[in-house]
Amino acid sequence: MKSKISHQLKLAKDASHALAYLSSSQKNTALYEMIRSLKKGKSEILKANQLDILKTQKMGKNESFFLRLKLTDAKINEMIKGIEQIINIEDPIGKIDNGWTRPNGLQISKIRVPLGVIAVVFESRPNVVSDVCALALKSGNAIILKGGIEATHTNAVITHFLKKGLENSKISQEIIQFLEIPKHEDIKILLKLSEYIDVVIPRGGKALIKMVVENSKIPVIFQNQGICHAFIDETADLEMAMRIVINAKTSNPSVCNAIECLLVHQTIAEQFLRKIGPQLLMNRVEIRGDRETLKWIPEAKAVCPEDYGYEFLDLILAVRVVQSIEEALDHISKFGSQHSEVIVTNSLENERKFLSEVDAACVYSNASTRFTDGGEFGFGAEIGISTQKLHARGPVGLQELTTYKYIIRGSGQIRE
Amino acid sequence: MKSKISHQLKLAKDASHALAYLSSSQKNTALYEMIRSLKKGKSEILKANQLDILKTQKMGKNESFFLRLKLTDAKINEMIKGIEQIINIEDPIGKIDNGWTRPNGLQISKIRVPLGVIAVVFESRPNVVSDVCALALKSGNAIILKGGIEATHTNAVITHFLKKGLENSKISQEIIQFLEIPKHEDIKILLKLSEYIDVVIPRGGKALIKMVVENSKIPVIFQNQGICHAFIDETADLEMAMRIVINAKTSNPSVCNAIECLLVHQTIAEQFLRKIGPQLLMNRVEIRGDRETLKWIPEAKAVCPEDYGYEFLDLILAVRVVQSIEEALDHISKFGSQHSEVIVTNSLENERKFLSEVDAACVYSNASTRFTDGGEFGFGAEIGISTQKLHARGPVGLQELTTYKYIIRGSGQIRE
Repeated sequence: MKSKISHQLKLAKDASHALAYLSSSQKNTALYEMIRSLKKGKSEILKANQLDILKTQKMGKNESFFLRLKLTDAKINEMIKGIEQIINIEDPIGKIDNGWTRPNGLQISKIRVPLGVIAVVFESRPNVVSDVCALALKSGNAIILKGGIEATHTNAVITHFLKKGLENSKISQEIIQFLEIPKHEDIKILLKLSEYIDVVIPRGGKALIKMVVENSKIPVIFQNQGICHAFIDETADLEMAMRIVINAKTSNPSVCNAIECLLVHQTIAEQFLRKIGPQLLMNRVEIRGDRETLKWIPEAKAVCPEDYGYEFLDLILAVRVVQSIEEALDHISKFGSQHSEVIVTNSLENERKFLSEVDAACVYSNASTRFTDGGEFGFGAEIGISTQKLHARGPVGLQELTTYKYIIRGSGQIRE
Repeated sequence: MKSKISHQLKLAKDASHALAYLSSSQKNTALYEMIRSLKKGKSEILKANQLDILKTQKMGKNESFFLRLKLTDAKINEMIKGIEQIINIEDPIGKIDNGWTRPNGLQISKIRVPLGVIAVVFESRPNVVSDVCALALKSGNAIILKGGIEATHTNAVITHFLKKGLENSKISQEIIQFLEIPKHEDIKILLKLSEYIDVVIPRGGKALIKMVVENSKIPVIFQNQGICHAFIDETADLEMAMRIVINAKTSNPSVCNAIECLLVHQTIAEQFLRKIGPQLLMNRVEIRGDRETLKWIPEAKAVCPEDYGYEFLDLILAVRVVQSIEEALDHISKFGSQHSEVIVTNSLENERKFLSEVDAACVYSNASTRFTDGGEFGFGAEIGISTQKLHARGPVGLQELTTYKYIIRGSGQIRE
């Protein structure tokens, strides 16, 4: 298995060099060809998907699993729309971040270049294949795909048609490598081959991310947890606060940018909690409140210490009444996961304090944390969200799939 | 040992929060106080250094080891000058990299913030202490110092006086933590405590870097090897080429930005090698050449395959005659370590090709690779050089000791 994987990775690595200095129009043309090829392949893709579904039905997976696995004509159209969006995003490669001339005349430019080879280890959703292939190509990177075993046929056929799209271009098909690794354990082989891969991006559940992070010898861009808070201060517009909290909690509770905990300033606690309590309950949210909260929302359960800093990913909300913005900041510093945090306020001073003091990828005032997303940020597409501090933080778009190099032009300078 | 280390790291982590939003003038004032304190402490520092030297003399270390360990009045003055330089560098914190307004009115800013807590694991040279403390403070980071056992007294006393300088400022002394870990093996404890440390930077020999990279659960910024090449093309000014090669090989052969291999285009091979051969030999450089090289430098030894891609860190130079720029690029791609590479040329086309196609942190035309250095780049100071592609590449200055966060200001936006 190791030699088979190594062989494919080497093909990708070798092909990645030429990819690094393609023009944007060459890359966009190739992306258009990929779309054409996907359109042609629709029925074959759906057939392969049917095969995966039949196989998986014997495995006793739940309904939401099948919802993720199942492709439809509409879903393939969405995949195509995704590639079109990536065509329209500005190419980050070749952008000069900075440039200056040294006193000795050396001209230094810091220029954006591709990372090289990106490996994406993902689960179930087959549309990931076209998304990440398009993102990788546009950012000048070769891509290694390792998908879930349940979607093997679907992923393989999608990859086939994407590669076929490259046939008419001068770009080597080897820039896309689809790995068939039937034994889960063998993914660890891939994660050790740092000579061929520049970065690994896991997309999937906690178990997958943990396995990748713990076993990888290659740098990993990943998202830890999303334990997001909303703090409603004493000056907040309570109507706005309610809209934001309801949206951040209930519009998609299973995602990382949903809030898990509500912090309310004591001054407005009675008024706000009396108001939002029934709304949350109406939206089937289980409220777990501290003693003060229970006073104003009698239907709430009593919070236990483990509920703070817990990622429910469900219609559950921990609620705490705080004495001051400092107490809210302390709570967030202690329990937050540095993902997304929001203050709802009408105080310039509190806004400034919150935005500057909270240490998180995305710090909001007066908006829902649900906007932490590559698309919503205007990146056009994202490959994931990072809660790390090095390299990429927050939504990971095309820009984050690049690195830089320094180009130094001289006229014979030597160092004394 | 673990609880002792954890305790110190927690102190640093807690103190780091306040450090994140100090003004530049507060940080510069503290740096001035550090200088004052170092000046006062001079004789005590020299005394401690004397103690370390006495202790180490029994250990049978070589002369260059003592040269690195020994402090003098002049060396302390250099440390002070280093801090002065850092005072004069622009503060990276708070800089807005980018900002835009979304169609829904959300205002997004990408703003530079400190990483948090940086740990530096280093060997012998005690001046590292003041350098990295000043760099960390200026970039708003707390710093964990783990130095070589041989320099324990010196490092401890320098740290003491740097911390004392903070006494008159409002900055907590806990932002600097000096770890006494007498057993080398126990460094591994430190490298697992990812909840307190954001990045580890090893400074020292290969063995140290390898140990840190292999054992760290914390992201590491490090420098792998420096296998740098100079390619002299057929259009090069041969006088300039000679100056550059001699400088890049001999001005400090033991450092990472010295060249290890010379590639010469066949068209000018006879003329250039006849010219540079005697010059290299006069500089006591051992030449290991291919068959073509041996024709024109009879004193050269025959190169063996392992000499290509080898980091000599010594007065040894591998030489190869190539048929074309493509062959030179292939050689560099195969044997280079993505550190620094140079072409000497008068051809615009070859310059463009080389600068765009070589995948390395620093790619030069017509200048010595020895300029790959934070100081020479104008960064004022550096904490090291990175051969990684993620986060930091090339010289690691203040900017690379920061991360970013997104600040998003809304007026009640929710996500549909």
